[in-house]
Amino acid sequence: MQDFEHRTLVSEVFSSKSKKAEIAGWVKNVRALGKIKFLVMKDMSGEIQITAVEGKVDNKIFEMMDKIPRESVVYIKGEIKDSKQAPGGKEIIPESIIILSKAEDLPIDISEQSKTELPKRLDFRFLDLHRRRTQAIFRIQSEIANAFREHFFRKKYMEMQPPCIISAASEGGTELFPVKYFEKKAFLAQSPQLYKQMLACSVERVFMITPVWRAEKHNTPRHINEIRQMDIEVAFTNQMSIMKELEEVVKYIVKRVLENCKEELEILEVKALKVPKGVYLSYEEAIKKVGGKIGEDFTPEQERKLCAIYKGDIVFTHSWPTSIKPFYIMPKDEKANAKLSEGFDALYLGVEISSGGQRIHLPELLIQRLKAKRLNPKNFKEYIDSFRFGAPPHSGWSIGLERLTQQICGLDNIKEATMFPRDRDRLTP
Amino acid sequence: MQDFEHRTLVSEVFSSKSKKAEIAGWVKNVRALGKIKFLVMKDMSGEIQITAVEGKVDNKIFEMMDKIPRESVVYIKGEIKDSKQAPGGKEIIPESIIILSKAEDLPIDISEQSKTELPKRLDFRFLDLHRRRTQAIFRIQSEIANAFREHFFRKKYMEMQPPCIISAASEGGTELFPVKYFEKKAFLAQSPQLYKQMLACSVERVFMITPVWRAEKHNTPRHINEIRQMDIEVAFTNQMSIMKELEEVVKYIVKRVLENCKEELEILEVKALKVPKGVYLSYEEAIKKVGGKIGEDFTPEQERKLCAIYKGDIVFTHSWPTSIKPFYIMPKDEKANAKLSEGFDALYLGVEISSGGQRIHLPELLIQRLKAKRLNPKNFKEYIDSFRFGAPPHSGWSIGLERLTQQICGLDNIKEATMFPRDRDRLTP
Repeated sequence: MQDFEHRTLVSEVFSSKSKKAEIAGWVKNVRALGKIKFLVMKDMSGEIQITAVEGKVDNKIFEMMDKIPRESVVYIKGEIKDSKQAPGGKEIIPESIIILSKAEDLPIDISEQSKTELPKRLDFRFLDLHRRRTQAIFRIQSEIANAFREHFFRKKYMEMQPPCIISAASEGGTELFPVKYFEKKAFLAQSPQLYKQMLACSVERVFMITPVWRAEKHNTPRHINEIRQMDIEVAFTNQMSIMKELEEVVKYIVKRVLENCKEELEILEVKALKVPKGVYLSYEEAIKKVGGKIGEDFTPEQERKLCAIYKGDIVFTHSWPTSIKPFYIMPKDEKANAKLSEGFDALYLGVEISSGGQRIHLPELLIQRLKAKRLNPKNFKEYIDSFRFGAPPHSGWSIGLERLTQQICGLDNIKEATMFPRDRDRLTP
Repeated sequence: MQDFEHRTLVSEVFSSKSKKAEIAGWVKNVRALGKIKFLVMKDMSGEIQITAVEGKVDNKIFEMMDKIPRESVVYIKGEIKDSKQAPGGKEIIPESIIILSKAEDLPIDISEQSKTELPKRLDFRFLDLHRRRTQAIFRIQSEIANAFREHFFRKKYMEMQPPCIISAASEGGTELFPVKYFEKKAFLAQSPQLYKQMLACSVERVFMITPVWRAEKHNTPRHINEIRQMDIEVAFTNQMSIMKELEEVVKYIVKRVLENCKEELEILEVKALKVPKGVYLSYEEAIKKVGGKIGEDFTPEQERKLCAIYKGDIVFTHSWPTSIKPFYIMPKDEKANAKLSEGFDALYLGVEISSGGQRIHLPELLIQRLKAKRLNPKNFKEYIDSFRFGAPPHSGWSIGLERLTQQICGLDNIKEATMFPRDRDRLTP
């Protein structure tokens, strides 16, 4: 069996002072031009050319080189040589080539400008992931997720692990996936909100990235049924302070992506990305700007319009009418019949990336607001009761990880930004 | 409504040079000693004493102070005074006390040495989380999770987001929770293994923390049905190199906990924790040491015995017999009938914290091993086929986040280390 102790990454070969190298990776392509053969090998760090001239390398190696199927995995030992013709200025003259895993005929086109359509590429996602373009998307997603967590962890927020199986709909939502939990009926959580509120009411500052599920029947480029949410919840805050937290973390995320994913952004041809400013408008100011009607949500077109006015920035619309915010959003001045609320939305790069606000922490006010929304407080008993034993004012929001990845990468379909998407029809791979 | 702009944390009061402070938090306890009253207020950063002498503070404040129910949330403005009697050497003389949220009678004992039993405390987890002891466990868990991710992110591993809903049992396991996915039958994933293998076969190095579900019917201090796994999978590795990765990250995690969670370890009375060494034994060497029988797994008692020999260290047992490792573990030298395998286990602080090893990346060998295990290769077609288009040798492992938290914190029951546990009978809160 092959030992990989002496393997070096391709990127290390280019900066190496050694004359020999052992490398391993995938065969990107092979060319035979009479007495000279080329093989381009790629690994996680880059690509390098292997060059063989007939008579100058072992004859068996020369013979086999252009017969190795694309994407096969090889282990190559050889000499590093400077070469003006080779990409990057270096090439390897092979002394041995071992095929670790021979690839069969590829079922999809994995060239960078793949002609295979998305659904078929998703069927073979493990192969689609051989493309630099696909890898670039998930490198950026990995940067986003880790920047998000590092930001809040450094600010002494506690990471939480909410339950994913719940006994009932905490938010009163209806679009839930049922789970058979032994003899009991249960559901997949559509939001960790109740749990993060509970935790913020004792440890004050919490964050998490967690999967949530929504059994929406749409199948569009905007919908998937299993998503990851980036959430925070913070005690002793209102909508204003929590919006600032969102502005700060999105700035940090974009900064990190710009700094650490230069190559990935280039591959994806993302050119206009900049560290955004936060723009703060009241709901009323914003709806007037786009010619909307007070008391109604923004249409996707109005959202794009607002974003176009403040290009590349985060547009916060705050103090929304209580009538179009969920029952748990705090009304202004803690008054049950207030017209305006402590709820906000955040738009970025053309779409809504987050909504949130201050929550109601007072059981009696919560009951009043539930009734005003024609909901039955009895169905929310557990939620209401969790605020009876010392719950401070608190606020929070969530950002969809796939949605933010999609916007930052400039992708048309959210499924491109989801490693293994689950939609109306897709459960595999 | 209260604005929190001028609020300072209790810890800041102790280092403050200002004479006034505005603080907010929970009433830990109140005492009235005739003409003097004390209130201890706690927030996420610490505790401070509020002292009122009759006639020297506003009479209304003096009157109300000892009538505020425990755990109520208060906003206090006052003067900072040095005091030899007060814990920490400072106290606050109150100028105003606003009750933001009045607590009702507490249903459980939330003193640090709570007399309420675990099941009842779990019923009121949001209140149990008011205890410093409970908070300490999850501060340590948050440190573990973030140290794990930071370690691998820095090493250029890509974070992945595996699907949680799957169409069939990838590992051939039987203990799965069924989900109704629109018209289809689906399951909750019991492991992200297939997906991390797929991804490692293109991007080489991947990590994640993800929830998994096991429908095991036991209800013991060792079992929960929803856990979080810390996983890695790496191309061009074997069992030896992947064990080294585990040793390195556990060392880093423990180092971080020792450095950043001093107070929490004190609260939990964890005294013997040290940065572990890695001890490497072959399965045969190890089973001889504890008087076990070759070809059998270690009993929990034998595991404890091995850990006692190498106290505080990580005990790796490698090269297990193929007969007691899963079908996907690589047999020695890629030979289908090899007696030994590239599979390992890792013991730490008395229990198994991880198992893993090199996987089979060759479709034909995989089929042979499935047959040897009396499993039908047809049921694993998708898994086998994912290795047909250029799969390098690769290895991986996983560590249970709750299990590691439990061991590091020295807890008897894994449910103490799970924020909102799901077990045979528990689906709430």
